[in-house]
Amino acid sequence: MSNPDRPPLIFSAFVMNTTSHIYQGTWRHPDARNLEHNSLEYWVELAKLLEAGTFDLIFFADVVGLYGDYRGDYRKYVETGLQIPANDPAVIASALAYATEHLGIAFTSAVVQEHPFSFARKISTLDHASGGRIAWNVVTSYLKNAFANFGYDDIVAHDARYDWADEYLDVAYKLWEGSWDEGALVQDKAGLHADFDKVHKIHHLGRNYKVEGPHLVAPSPQRTPLIFQAGSSPRGQQFAARHAEGIFVSSPTPEVARQQIEATRQLAAAHGRSPEDLKFLAGLSFVVGSTEEEARRRAADLDENWIDWDGHLAHFAGSLGIDLGHHDLDAPVGEINVETVQGIIRGLERAHPGRPLVVRDLARFMASANRIVGTPEQIADRLAEWRDAGVDGVNVMNVVRPGDYEEFIEHVTPVLQRRGLQRTEYAEGTLRRKLFGTDRLNDRHPAARYRGAFNGPRSWPEAADPRAVEAAPVGR
Amino acid sequence: MSNPDRPPLIFSAFVMNTTSHIYQGTWRHPDARNLEHNSLEYWVELAKLLEAGTFDLIFFADVVGLYGDYRGDYRKYVETGLQIPANDPAVIASALAYATEHLGIAFTSAVVQEHPFSFARKISTLDHASGGRIAWNVVTSYLKNAFANFGYDDIVAHDARYDWADEYLDVAYKLWEGSWDEGALVQDKAGLHADFDKVHKIHHLGRNYKVEGPHLVAPSPQRTPLIFQAGSSPRGQQFAARHAEGIFVSSPTPEVARQQIEATRQLAAAHGRSPEDLKFLAGLSFVVGSTEEEARRRAADLDENWIDWDGHLAHFAGSLGIDLGHHDLDAPVGEINVETVQGIIRGLERAHPGRPLVVRDLARFMASANRIVGTPEQIADRLAEWRDAGVDGVNVMNVVRPGDYEEFIEHVTPVLQRRGLQRTEYAEGTLRRKLFGTDRLNDRHPAARYRGAFNGPRSWPEAADPRAVEAAPVGR
Repeated sequence: MSNPDRPPLIFSAFVMNTTSHIYQGTWRHPDARNLEHNSLEYWVELAKLLEAGTFDLIFFADVVGLYGDYRGDYRKYVETGLQIPANDPAVIASALAYATEHLGIAFTSAVVQEHPFSFARKISTLDHASGGRIAWNVVTSYLKNAFANFGYDDIVAHDARYDWADEYLDVAYKLWEGSWDEGALVQDKAGLHADFDKVHKIHHLGRNYKVEGPHLVAPSPQRTPLIFQAGSSPRGQQFAARHAEGIFVSSPTPEVARQQIEATRQLAAAHGRSPEDLKFLAGLSFVVGSTEEEARRRAADLDENWIDWDGHLAHFAGSLGIDLGHHDLDAPVGEINVETVQGIIRGLERAHPGRPLVVRDLARFMASANRIVGTPEQIADRLAEWRDAGVDGVNVMNVVRPGDYEEFIEHVTPVLQRRGLQRTEYAEGTLRRKLFGTDRLNDRHPAARYRGAFNGPRSWPEAADPRAVEAAPVGR
Repeated sequence: MSNPDRPPLIFSAFVMNTTSHIYQGTWRHPDARNLEHNSLEYWVELAKLLEAGTFDLIFFADVVGLYGDYRGDYRKYVETGLQIPANDPAVIASALAYATEHLGIAFTSAVVQEHPFSFARKISTLDHASGGRIAWNVVTSYLKNAFANFGYDDIVAHDARYDWADEYLDVAYKLWEGSWDEGALVQDKAGLHADFDKVHKIHHLGRNYKVEGPHLVAPSPQRTPLIFQAGSSPRGQQFAARHAEGIFVSSPTPEVARQQIEATRQLAAAHGRSPEDLKFLAGLSFVVGSTEEEARRRAADLDENWIDWDGHLAHFAGSLGIDLGHHDLDAPVGEINVETVQGIIRGLERAHPGRPLVVRDLARFMASANRIVGTPEQIADRLAEWRDAGVDGVNVMNVVRPGDYEEFIEHVTPVLQRRGLQRTEYAEGTLRRKLFGTDRLNDRHPAARYRGAFNGPRSWPEAADPRAVEAAPVGR
């Protein structure tokens, strides 16, 4: 029995400004309007729909390069619209903010793609424009082509990327939290516009960046945007435990999610944070039917007629930088002679005992492990189990866009609301206030140490410029 | 007598996402709403007003750093809101695009502030979202603090900045014009999403950038946005003559503007372009009255009671990187012992013979040289003179925002429209089509050479990486 004392789940719509995001090939479905992603009206319409359905967030995934070659080149991605085109989500955010009142607007931005001074300014401007509804999904990118678009000959090594991201966040925190003191902006027509003694340069000097400041935007409603992260490696989990307020979990079952959540909460505690400082969102997709049979029939139709399993394999393998394009989808998985993939296969074999797996199963299980198929009531039952496992919210993936959200909001949301699993109305205020009860990061967050840190006369540190020891070109 | 065969003037509203842009101190005026610049609603309201008044463009100036110190530090700028805060104009553009149908949206972006791969993607996304209404004002920045915000110890030298900007534009042109061929995007639900043979990597390798591609956004209505530039130095004029479609001229009289325009058109011809490929916009401000006397009284009230001449001096001197803050406003200009400024003073003395100039005059003449004061009919007479001198449009500066545009559109626009000096309705289509009759850059523009340039198998050039010879860190 579900625990009725727990708060409603957070609902986030997981989208991307592209044609084919997670469920490859389904843009060909007659109901799909994924092709309209260049249109602002299309995204505004979706944002308004989500707000009518009391979703907490629209959440944009993003990439700044192609996935690794598949069958030797990037033909597959172009021909199936697999995350190319990939339009910039950040620049359409203000239109969504203008057309809505409460919906949170989250987007992904990689450390490699923008200098932190410009990024911090962009976020602060948007946070003002939206009344404090902006969230940022911090990623370090793992695509060789993304690095090649920004001057790198190869991917920066995994742990070094997270060190780089730590500094990137430090620069941003200094600008958001430390450059302008509380009360700095006066805007008195008969007096000061701002108080000079409360607007500080930051003089950041680190391995990757040298940034003088001050921040060019006055403190926005949230100052630091709500921070999301999805790191799953040991270094990535440490990073998330230190910085993130929202964390994505991708787990086959609620029980596995519970273990991941508990482990990350413990890591966060080691960083001086409290368990309630972090919210965990499970990535799930839904196939709804008025009966269980109808739902299963629809799911089977998607699997057999619309989902491009070769596209799924390309997406999965390309994200690992491995080319599995020469494998037949019906060949035994044992043929894949790649250590990383064999580790994943062994996990899938344990989770799906029975007939020997073929390559198609690899794509299938990676795509649909977290798919819930059933009536609205059955979906509510399952979501109650996820909530009981400690999950705070759901990142709702789509097969067709916007149809899946229309359907969810029309049929599932009313049931969830009756059962206290989804909010029935919005709380007032910023996104952070809606989710955590405060506009600003609390004092336990690492950004808080920069508050008031730049008072008094300051200049560049005396130490030698640490950028001299940095071999890789950053951001060129 | 004005030539009635010339087309209407282009009208652009010259604004900045800040409190105090050109006319310093006037945000204190009771009618000014400049303080509301953090609000999206404020900018949307202005954009709708401009569209109701058939303005062609809203044009955002921008800086990414403070002006040079004044009286030894940046106190003056903070206390008077002089371009700090300076919010990011690019991220509010989509809201303005959503709320309007025809208005062009131009913003300034400096080469130092963003990597060209990200910038090109941002622009293409916005050009799609706006139906092809985006323009970019290319600047190289001349503020030491701007460079210090991006890792530089000092301003990059003037001509080197333009060389850098040439490469920046080359990267962007390759992405906008060359990466996706015409017809590349198919979006056939029963077939291809895009044609792989028409989506190319660009393999750019230059002194400052190494960029693989492909461009991540399919061709937008204009591909390359409308390009504005305001270079006035010899190197800057060469740059503008080569790249720009819209050029700002800041001239004390129509006759001086005519000379500047003719000189730039000749330079453009030397780059293989035609005179009609460039439009020239004069920066002007207006004080309107129902009688000439009322207009003059209002102008005098602004000068005596609202304009902060010390702020003007700070803005003028800080843009030159010279600190004139220790000069009394009533002191003779001869006291200013700086060669650059003395050159400007000698020009002002010739233009304003009579009593010896004081420091206040320097600020005054630099600010109000292009101010037109009078009745709507008198303003129309003067604008006809500017048009006869070869000026194609006006960049309308404001003293109070949005009031000056409300007043202009209510009182001056109807007179201009009757006299064929301002359009009465919008043409259909993209911004470039409205102004030049075509959606895309013509074949004479340097960007055109990248069309079809990346067909066939390609990879990185064999030559040694030219970035190795580049001493200055770029974009970090």
